[in-house]
Amino acid sequence: MIFKDLDCIVFAGDSVTDMGSAQPVGESFFDNLGHGYVRMVDNLLSAVYPEVRIRVVNAGISGNTSADLLARLDRDVLVFHPQYVSICIGINDVWRQFDSPYNPTCSVTLENYEANLRKIIEKCKEQGVKGIFMLTPYYMEPNRQDPMRARMDEYVAVCKRLAEEYGCELVDFQKLYEEYFSVCHSSIIAWDRVHPNEKGATLMAREFLKHCDFDFNHDFKK
Amino acid sequence: MIFKDLDCIVFAGDSVTDMGSAQPVGESFFDNLGHGYVRMVDNLLSAVYPEVRIRVVNAGISGNTSADLLARLDRDVLVFHPQYVSICIGINDVWRQFDSPYNPTCSVTLENYEANLRKIIEKCKEQGVKGIFMLTPYYMEPNRQDPMRARMDEYVAVCKRLAEEYGCELVDFQKLYEEYFSVCHSSIIAWDRVHPNEKGATLMAREFLKHCDFDFNHDFKK
Amino acid sequence: MIFKDLDCIVFAGDSVTDMGSAQPVGESFFDNLGHGYVRMVDNLLSAVYPEVRIRVVNAGISGNTSADLLARLDRDVLVFHPQYVSICIGINDVWRQFDSPYNPTCSVTLENYEANLRKIIEKCKEQGVKGIFMLTPYYMEPNRQDPMRARMDEYVAVCKRLAEEYGCELVDFQKLYEEYFSVCHSSIIAWDRVHPNEKGATLMAREFLKHCDFDFNHDFKK
Amino acid sequence: MIFKDLDCIVFAGDSVTDMGSAQPVGESFFDNLGHGYVRMVDNLLSAVYPEVRIRVVNAGISGNTSADLLARLDRDVLVFHPQYVSICIGINDVWRQFDSPYNPTCSVTLENYEANLRKIIEKCKEQGVKGIFMLTPYYMEPNRQDPMRARMDEYVAVCKRLAEEYGCELVDFQKLYEEYFSVCHSSIIAWDRVHPNEKGATLMAREFLKHCDFDFNHDFKK
Amino acid sequence: MIFKDLDCIVFAGDSVTDMGSAQPVGESFFDNLGHGYVRMVDNLLSAVYPEVRIRVVNAGISGNTSADLLARLDRDVLVFHPQYVSICIGINDVWRQFDSPYNPTCSVTLENYEANLRKIIEKCKEQGVKGIFMLTPYYMEPNRQDPMRARMDEYVAVCKRLAEEYGCELVDFQKLYEEYFSVCHSSIIAWDRVHPNEKGATLMAREFLKHCDFDFNHDFKK
Amino acid sequence: MIFKDLDCIVFAGDSVTDMGSAQPVGESFFDNLGHGYVRMVDNLLSAVYPEVRIRVVNAGISGNTSADLLARLDRDVLVFHPQYVSICIGINDVWRQFDSPYNPTCSVTLENYEANLRKIIEKCKEQGVKGIFMLTPYYMEPNRQDPMRARMDEYVAVCKRLAEEYGCELVDFQKLYEEYFSVCHSSIIAWDRVHPNEKGATLMAREFLKHCDFDFNHDFKK
Amino acid sequence: MIFKDLDCIVFAGDSVTDMGSAQPVGESFFDNLGHGYVRMVDNLLSAVYPEVRIRVVNAGISGNTSADLLARLDRDVLVFHPQYVSICIGINDVWRQFDSPYNPTCSVTLENYEANLRKIIEKCKEQGVKGIFMLTPYYMEPNRQDPMRARMDEYVAVCKRLAEEYGCELVDFQKLYEEYFSVCHSSIIAWDRVHPNEKGATLMAREFLKHCDFDFNHDFKK
Amino acid sequence: MIFKDLDCIVFAGDSVTDMGSAQPVGESFFDNLGHGYVRMVDNLLSAVYPEVRIRVVNAGISGNTSADLLARLDRDVLVFHPQYVSICIGINDVWRQFDSPYNPTCSVTLENYEANLRKIIEKCKEQGVKGIFMLTPYYMEPNRQDPMRARMDEYVAVCKRLAEEYGCELVDFQKLYEEYFSVCHSSIIAWDRVHPNEKGATLMAREFLKHCDFDFNHDFKK
Repeated sequence: MIFKDLDCIVFAGDSVTDMGSAQPVGESFFDNLGHGYVRMVDNLLSAVYPEVRIRVVNAGISGNTSADLLARLDRDVLVFHPQYVSICIGINDVWRQFDSPYNPTCSVTLENYEANLRKIIEKCKEQGVKGIFMLTPYYMEPNRQDPMRARMDEYVAVCKRLAEEYGCELVDFQKLYEEYFSVCHSSIIAWDRVHPNEKGATLMAREFLKHCDFDFNHDFKK
Repeated sequence: MIFKDLDCIVFAGDSVTDMGSAQPVGESFFDNLGHGYVRMVDNLLSAVYPEVRIRVVNAGISGNTSADLLARLDRDVLVFHPQYVSICIGINDVWRQFDSPYNPTCSVTLENYEANLRKIIEKCKEQGVKGIFMLTPYYMEPNRQDPMRARMDEYVAVCKRLAEEYGCELVDFQKLYEEYFSVCHSSIIAWDRVHPNEKGATLMAREFLKHCDFDFNHDFKK
Repeated sequence: MIFKDLDCIVFAGDSVTDMGSAQPVGESFFDNLGHGYVRMVDNLLSAVYPEVRIRVVNAGISGNTSADLLARLDRDVLVFHPQYVSICIGINDVWRQFDSPYNPTCSVTLENYEANLRKIIEKCKEQGVKGIFMLTPYYMEPNRQDPMRARMDEYVAVCKRLAEEYGCELVDFQKLYEEYFSVCHSSIIAWDRVHPNEKGATLMAREFLKHCDFDFNHDFKK
Repeated sequence: MIFKDLDCIVFAGDSVTDMGSAQPVGESFFDNLGHGYVRMVDNLLSAVYPEVRIRVVNAGISGNTSADLLARLDRDVLVFHPQYVSICIGINDVWRQFDSPYNPTCSVTLENYEANLRKIIEKCKEQGVKGIFMLTPYYMEPNRQDPMRARMDEYVAVCKRLAEEYGCELVDFQKLYEEYFSVCHSSIIAWDRVHPNEKGATLMAREFLKHCDFDFNHDFKK
Repeated sequence: MIFKDLDCIVFAGDSVTDMGSAQPVGESFFDNLGHGYVRMVDNLLSAVYPEVRIRVVNAGISGNTSADLLARLDRDVLVFHPQYVSICIGINDVWRQFDSPYNPTCSVTLENYEANLRKIIEKCKEQGVKGIFMLTPYYMEPNRQDPMRARMDEYVAVCKRLAEEYGCELVDFQKLYEEYFSVCHSSIIAWDRVHPNEKGATLMAREFLKHCDFDFNHDFKK
Repeated sequence: MIFKDLDCIVFAGDSVTDMGSAQPVGESFFDNLGHGYVRMVDNLLSAVYPEVRIRVVNAGISGNTSADLLARLDRDVLVFHPQYVSICIGINDVWRQFDSPYNPTCSVTLENYEANLRKIIEKCKEQGVKGIFMLTPYYMEPNRQDPMRARMDEYVAVCKRLAEEYGCELVDFQKLYEEYFSVCHSSIIAWDRVHPNEKGATLMAREFLKHCDFDFNHDFKK
Repeated sequence: MIFKDLDCIVFAGDSVTDMGSAQPVGESFFDNLGHGYVRMVDNLLSAVYPEVRIRVVNAGISGNTSADLLARLDRDVLVFHPQYVSICIGINDVWRQFDSPYNPTCSVTLENYEANLRKIIEKCKEQGVKGIFMLTPYYMEPNRQDPMRARMDEYVAVCKRLAEEYGCELVDFQKLYEEYFSVCHSSIIAWDRVHPNEKGATLMAREFLKHCDFDFNHDFKK
Repeated sequence: MIFKDLDCIVFAGDSVTDMGSAQPVGESFFDNLGHGYVRMVDNLLSAVYPEVRIRVVNAGISGNTSADLLARLDRDVLVFHPQYVSICIGINDVWRQFDSPYNPTCSVTLENYEANLRKIIEKCKEQGVKGIFMLTPYYMEPNRQDPMRARMDEYVAVCKRLAEEYGCELVDFQKLYEEYFSVCHSSIIAWDRVHPNEKGATLMAREFLKHCDFDFNHDFKK
């Protein structure tokens, strides 16, 4: 597994990352990590690699757009001097265009999304973060003609392009859900096609860990 | 994986199984399965094998001894006509001897424990349950000289002996914790050396799934 | 408008009808009618036709399938000897097939749905109900290829066929939503594509009232 | 209908406007608009004209007099640079004279009411607000000899005079209630003759929308 | 004062009597008497005549009509074998005609009101109750042309006629409020013209005590 | 009665005055006056003299000593420019000597009590307060040999002496309770011999009103 | 110490015994024993004699008189077949005479108190209880001329006389408080002269344990 | 007993001292002292030596390490100018190394623990504190090979060495628990081997009082 003893990973994002974690940032102690994919990643790392001490921090805040995350990056993410940063942002940038169309001030355009994401990545790199995970935003909608799904695909494309350009590790949640919906209906893992329950969070955690050389059958016994 | 489409598994037990599940029995829907190893098993099965429809039922009740479980076996477990039954009972049979020594009526002797367990297994077999998992009781105490650990080891031994006698699948939680404590301190996964947090529940779920031909890297895509 | 002074209308259904109404049945008094389309229908009738005294009863119960509604029809609906009955049932008959596929006992097959609906209509007719409104079940999913939408369309078809066969007034909510989604995204009126907020409830109430000769500009002044 | 795509309307007022809306100002999102006539106006606009994106803001605060509203006009109303402002103020200016006669500091005299209202209108005009709705204060008391009703009529007269003088659109709630009480008793829509329930709120919303070229039967289908 | 040591008075009625008292009946102990006129009567009797031990029982239940009170007279009132019974009933008999006109089953006609009241009085007399107080229902509406006030006046008239016919002590609350409203507005003592606050309750208690030879300046000192 | 239209009376004191009133000061509106003698005085004044508008303010704060009251006199009492001030302070000055003898910093010596009281009276006189009521502290203990009662008597004596010296109206609660206990036991009106229930509050209110030319049988009818 | 390994002691009584214990009876486990003298006795026995397993049961119920306790003696006390029973009853038999003098049905006369106590003792003896503790009722009032104290002294006298007659162990709480009040004021240990805080409970527990050969300095080390 | 009239003792520490006490510091009044050993010490001192007025202050705060306590020593402890200070700190210094090994910033090394403790003692001595009690940290684990117990023993050793060096009174809780566990299992007094219930708190209080010349059988009667 890629993480070493005493490594620190900060997960930055919106409500999908947050999921009720301690505010402004919660650490791997008691129930501080919320109930989403971050908690599941920490549960699996702790249970399978107990001999490796990994500091997991949840820096997700509900409702955040890429603009909100950029504004608090120093205070909530870089302050920990993490070895790894995971970024999952953009859902609200798009969603507000569809559920609050009358208020253009609360969403983020594709152009601004790209600019915000660039600055977030560059700030992480400037501080010497060893590894950056780019987790794509997503909409749990199998129909690509759905206007919100179509719009989201444009943001996902930006996310993938920047991941490649900056050499980040890409975790493609939109693709994951596309595959999942070929065998199951979305109502099993989410009520609103955005916030997964624990089953969905486990699905996401598995996808994340595929990028970490994680071995579920690892033997920690001495 | 051993479970087939539309199989039903009922997890019977005490508070370690229950962990806040719906009462008297909770199913795999919303948050009904509680927050312990049963939930984690269901999360992992659902995320990794979404194409297999498995009905998971949590029939744990806090504070139950083997006597209590036997008394409600028909009503809470066999009523579902499950293909599989998982039994994790005995912790309170022992614990009450140590935290309530002045009240001998609330614990269960080793002799009665064996008798109760036999009847539970036999009733399951009579109804034609396809597979029985025997999950050992445990005490998260690495010191074998600790009197409660020593007593628990006697109950664990009964559990293992009956599993072999009746051809049940044995999941040895006491051994698992023994191995875990060789690399980590118990305070990481439990406050009271009995009730695991989600990290411990994930550890237990992994151990259970090792007995189910579970492949974490299973590819569900068509 | 078709309703006469002292007419009684009972709205039977599931959570979409219920929406927090008093249980088992709530009447047009205080907040007893819940917060869904039934409340909005009552609000509009009361505000626009204050001179006509109409007794509105909400007999919706969350989670009901057509089988559940049939079982309680006498007790919760016919007991009021209503002039009009409105029936909106079937969403859960379908939904459970998709969010709980591992438990076949909680959904209702198409065949049984038709049988249940027939009995409901016939019992109303036997008691001499003057007018029956058939409100179609629906899924707020514009993509007809979505498997749950496709299944729902089969139930909607049954609903329409029976409405015609028995001479009931058909209110086609699925069609209404189809039209609505041609101009707006579903996230404006519902989080989960099933339960509408007040905006959606107003949309549904308007659709219902189109079948009642309702005139929004009616002048009640003497 | 007079409102155009992306228009913003701010409803300023007291508890009758507020009705539990988010504080200090709530927008058309989730349940932020409260449960009074503002919510009903937004419900009807959203359901009937879904293709027009209208930003509705509730800037009502319980207990406000005209003096209170004037003091916070910049911060809570003009800050949105709205195309339209709706003003419904004066009830507490009068009510405190009757329920707290021993404390003259909490009510507002007729003279001051006129001065406050003038300043509110002029500030709106200075900022270039396109349309101003003057909603009269009211007392749901049919008896004109009632001293509080008589006093309220003087304030209503001021409100009407200023509306004419400044070319505002007048919505005469006092007249509406007078007509309503010719067919119904006030206890159907309010407990205290001031705060309407949802039936009363629908009545008020309909009255407001009569001044907006609102067509309940508008066909939004493309 | 008319009450003697160890006399028992039961106050029967609706929400105006009840006002949050213990259910089904509350006695003069702790806060069991509610917060209305019954509590005030007990406060004044206890403070002014502490040397006389009087058992005060509140048998009011919110929402009761004369039919409801008659049905529970044995169980809640006569069971105490009181020396005195106070009856204040009829408000809901009338109110429901105005706030729930669509549901004729929840109000009581004038004819039935008289019949119910007769039976209540006769049952008290049969049991040998020493004194019966008839407290008139009322509506805090000064305008006699108001339709609910006009209807209430008919019920008050029945109440007064029966009091005279059966030799009961009449306490005319409607007349009291009429006098009070000649100097004060109703909003000082009630929000809804029915349920008085403590100021109104004190006003009612004084009126009741005028019929009891109560002397506020009584000197209890030995 | 001595109070004139639009007079303001501020009641200053400790928990006996406060009794759950709004903080820092509550006025005669809704339930702001608490549940003690101040509320009862206001209830009686409002019910018996409704034609006189009297502004009653409760400036009691639980736990206050004379030192605490002096410190906040400007902010909580004199700020209202009252015609009348009522002072009831000293119970905690004494009580803390008996229930917290180990902490001498929380009680007030007799000498300091007199000094504080003098300053309170003089500040009121300087501002031109028309009438000052001195309400004695008290301990509901009939036995004069009880050490806390004996100590309280010394403070009561100071209170009486200063009332005479400065020409204040004296309301002797200690004497009142002495008389009351000659006919009744203290447990009827208080659990802790300090905080009266509503019966005791009514007793105190009557005593206060004896000093105000209050006529319970006053006829307010025009 | 007199208690032997596995002895069971049931403490029967009223609110002073109960003090929030589990209902109907609480045992020495978690917080089930309430917060009064029973808990303190158990705390001290457990801490000083940990090697002796003693089952302590709290069978106190708030508000009980001797009549209430007699009625439930079998169900709540004798059912445990205790070696020891402790009886502390009579406070409410007297108190109700003073705080509810108008309701003679809720107190118990001296004659009946003696009869009830006799029957309680005799039933215990019939069942073979090894030791009975008679704990006197009390009133924390140093003044013997206080009427409630004087009355209580009569009940205490009965209690002492029966203890002697039946050979019970007498614990004289009234005498204990008399001594305590010679050095401290009652407000240190109780608000209402009946219910002690933890300081008072410790005082009572020490008094109880004086009758049990309890040695605070006992050395449990092997 | 060593404490004299009006002495003040401040108990400084972490959650074991705090146990829900008032924050930042609670005194011996009402329930301010929490529910741990400090409360039990105060209960026993108050009940056995009521004639000596002792001011007990609880300055424990949950989660504190020696570094945290040092930082707030002036503000929370020395501000009282106590005659005695009790220090019980170090558990969290060790615990965090075991339950949060991935975050080295929240525990305290042995070296720093000694430095912190020295400064705490020296600051107390500089202010002229008459007596300092050093209460050892502890872990309720009988097995000395347990790694957390072994680490704790190093901290306990520092604590004992400094107590001797500075002439403080040593209270050895670790030794006390060692002795206790020779006769009882830890589950009787604590769930998590750190926070004792009231039985354990009584055990600790007795140990503390052994160092105070406390005589449980002291006779306070004059």
